[in-house]
Amino acid sequence: MNMMDAIRSIGEREKSPVELVRETLEIIRVKNPELNAYITVCEEEAVREAELLTREWESGTLRGPLHGIPIAVKDLVYTEGIRTTMGSVIHQDFVPHEDATVIEKLKDAGAVIIGKTNTHEFAYGPTGDVSHFGPVRNPYDPSRISGGSSSGSAAAVASGMAFAGIGTDTGGSVRIPASACNLVGMKPTFGRISKNNIFPLAYTLDHPGPITAGVEENAILLNILAGPDPADRYSLLESPPDFTTELRDGVEGTVIGLPAHYFRLLDPEVRSAAEQAVRRFESLGSKVIDVDIPVMPEINDAQIVTIQCEAAAIHRETMENRPGDYAPEVLARLEASVRRAGWEYVRAQQERPRLIEAYNEVFSNVDVLLTPTLPILPTPIGERKTVVDGKEIDVIPALLSLTSPTNFTGNPSLSVPSGFSREGLPIGIQLIGNHGDEAKLYRFGYAFEQNRS
Amino acid sequence: MNMMDAIRSIGEREKSPVELVRETLEIIRVKNPELNAYITVCEEEAVREAELLTREWESGTLRGPLHGIPIAVKDLVYTEGIRTTMGSVIHQDFVPHEDATVIEKLKDAGAVIIGKTNTHEFAYGPTGDVSHFGPVRNPYDPSRISGGSSSGSAAAVASGMAFAGIGTDTGGSVRIPASACNLVGMKPTFGRISKNNIFPLAYTLDHPGPITAGVEENAILLNILAGPDPADRYSLLESPPDFTTELRDGVEGTVIGLPAHYFRLLDPEVRSAAEQAVRRFESLGSKVIDVDIPVMPEINDAQIVTIQCEAAAIHRETMENRPGDYAPEVLARLEASVRRAGWEYVRAQQERPRLIEAYNEVFSNVDVLLTPTLPILPTPIGERKTVVDGKEIDVIPALLSLTSPTNFTGNPSLSVPSGFSREGLPIGIQLIGNHGDEAKLYRFGYAFEQNRS
Repeated sequence: MNMMDAIRSIGEREKSPVELVRETLEIIRVKNPELNAYITVCEEEAVREAELLTREWESGTLRGPLHGIPIAVKDLVYTEGIRTTMGSVIHQDFVPHEDATVIEKLKDAGAVIIGKTNTHEFAYGPTGDVSHFGPVRNPYDPSRISGGSSSGSAAAVASGMAFAGIGTDTGGSVRIPASACNLVGMKPTFGRISKNNIFPLAYTLDHPGPITAGVEENAILLNILAGPDPADRYSLLESPPDFTTELRDGVEGTVIGLPAHYFRLLDPEVRSAAEQAVRRFESLGSKVIDVDIPVMPEINDAQIVTIQCEAAAIHRETMENRPGDYAPEVLARLEASVRRAGWEYVRAQQERPRLIEAYNEVFSNVDVLLTPTLPILPTPIGERKTVVDGKEIDVIPALLSLTSPTNFTGNPSLSVPSGFSREGLPIGIQLIGNHGDEAKLYRFGYAFEQNRS
Repeated sequence: MNMMDAIRSIGEREKSPVELVRETLEIIRVKNPELNAYITVCEEEAVREAELLTREWESGTLRGPLHGIPIAVKDLVYTEGIRTTMGSVIHQDFVPHEDATVIEKLKDAGAVIIGKTNTHEFAYGPTGDVSHFGPVRNPYDPSRISGGSSSGSAAAVASGMAFAGIGTDTGGSVRIPASACNLVGMKPTFGRISKNNIFPLAYTLDHPGPITAGVEENAILLNILAGPDPADRYSLLESPPDFTTELRDGVEGTVIGLPAHYFRLLDPEVRSAAEQAVRRFESLGSKVIDVDIPVMPEINDAQIVTIQCEAAAIHRETMENRPGDYAPEVLARLEASVRRAGWEYVRAQQERPRLIEAYNEVFSNVDVLLTPTLPILPTPIGERKTVVDGKEIDVIPALLSLTSPTNFTGNPSLSVPSGFSREGLPIGIQLIGNHGDEAKLYRFGYAFEQNRS
């Protein structure tokens, strides 16, 4: 049962919030020990909340579109009274006194926080297999990574342990696990969703976002999560539109760009899936053209400088005081981050408006960009080298390579499932839009999803 | 003759623009060889422009309040067709194709650009004695520094070689030479004056500002220079008020704060001048109270990190390619700047809104702050150590210590003459206001100036 079914079953009084929550808890009991998606299952709180929601539901009141729907939340997002660990031993006993703004919004919409999901330690890694609470395993092949850093949220949704997940995306951390777990993951426009009371990885790159099985439910969730928040200095001031309105408008007569930069080194099965995706869009009436975005190398470099300096600013003292409490791989990344020079950061930020403008020039010729989400298939847990086209490459930069540019530019980017490899591993495509064009991305994603060949 | 007299003499048809310009060129001919205030005297262009302005004046047309008034411009401000050197051998032949926005505004107001003034090399130094074009000398004692980095603009105005000067202030570079040369120097609110086509020292600390003999003419000049500019991303969006309206309102019933942090280590003659200034304000009806701004040490540190990273971002490649073309002292400062870590810069910027808010809390209790502008008297040229209260201190950080905090916070800060040392060296006081309070600073400065004891 996906989220749309769950919403329907509540609305049509087939199932009560308590039933939904209890069924979900039962799936967690069975599947979580293997997949390790949850750090904390909020069994008691969820049942109590579901009982309250059930009484309201019985009296005919629904709080909002998510009334009674169990949602999994990345353990970087503060939950009042429920520990929030960042996947780190350092915060293993941290219990926030306040909810994140996104949690308030979910609760106002009637959602039940069913648990706090595992994350790559401090969200600083795209594999999802490095956490004080152990690696998250891919539901499609538990010997392989789920992708990260929002690893647990994706594994939970993919295995029925939640109807939707909340992630955060600084270099791809919503889209990467969504792609690896056959899900829909949206990194919206920068500032669209409040980051208030979410542990930062990098102030100007972090984007919270929804992870779901389908496109429509993702848009519904973004409607709930989006909006200006005075508590987040990076929050967009403008009120968000309704992201579901274009959903069924189709793609007839649209133009899709294939940016060369994103197609350079790809696993052959990924390339083939992307080519099939192109054909599917063409069959739906899109014109697909090759495009070039000459500033891509500059954007890649600037994203790396930015994440390094901003992450180091957060971790500097803790690294000095408790180096042994970081996973060695995360510590090594942070140590390299600390060494980045200030002038490089300043230059990246000074160039940022120009680079964003240059990136967005492509949207005067195309509606959206289409790229693979990941250039490789999900790799075995703990493995950091892989071979593509006979060439050995590093897994971490490869996983980040196609998603991280729009963390720097702030463009909305949606990963949608695009089939499977011969071995049954999920492959995703990424749709990228101009700033503010989330509704358009959902339209393309929905048309694609509804017309599986 | 000061600028108000010059404006009057044009208005009352006592003197033509050509006469004013020729007289000024004659003073330059006599005095500039000793003081070295000008790198480039725009004799030909100025006379040509003055002839045009004289014809307009003869036909009864005045372009604006500065019609025919010779103004000196720091050689960091781009002037179309006139070389702009930054005080560096590297740019000694650079001729801009465009005027800075402030030059356009001056020309629109009828001003004559009489010359481009010497500056500390790349504006990276407060002494004004390090330039490819030689040290600027203090008109009150040519063996001593004029203060910098807007050294030439101040020396020119103080010696009658211009009626006003344009400077830029990143750590005090308008106020420091104004104080050292017995002048009025305004660093307005950050973003008040456009930085378009002014060579940057540090993007988020640079403030262009006017240097004049008197307060009223300074306010008139700020009226001309201020205003939103789409070409400068840091430009304030709001339209500026008329900065002269409060000028004659007096200070009766006002409250002045003396921030302890600014009075710690002072030359005894500076301390005595500040105490006399306090008594003068008290005699004019101000209440003067001691205040404490606990965030001062944090602000000082953050200003240094910020100037270092931003300056290094500008100079990095040139330093690598042409190290021998920098003055050794400037190169050493830039080399230290290049080594600053990115995380320190990020943290300073993250803390900036909080630090600014904490600084401005003092303005709920006081109208303005009063401090010395410089803790020491102008030092001998080339000397980098001095003795205060029996303690040997470094000249460069001492000169910057009282002015640089408001470059980080963006508060308007005005230096006004406050008498002389026994040896006849000028001493200035600094008045600091809340963001947007330039008119109030001019009111305090004018009351102070008009009531010399």
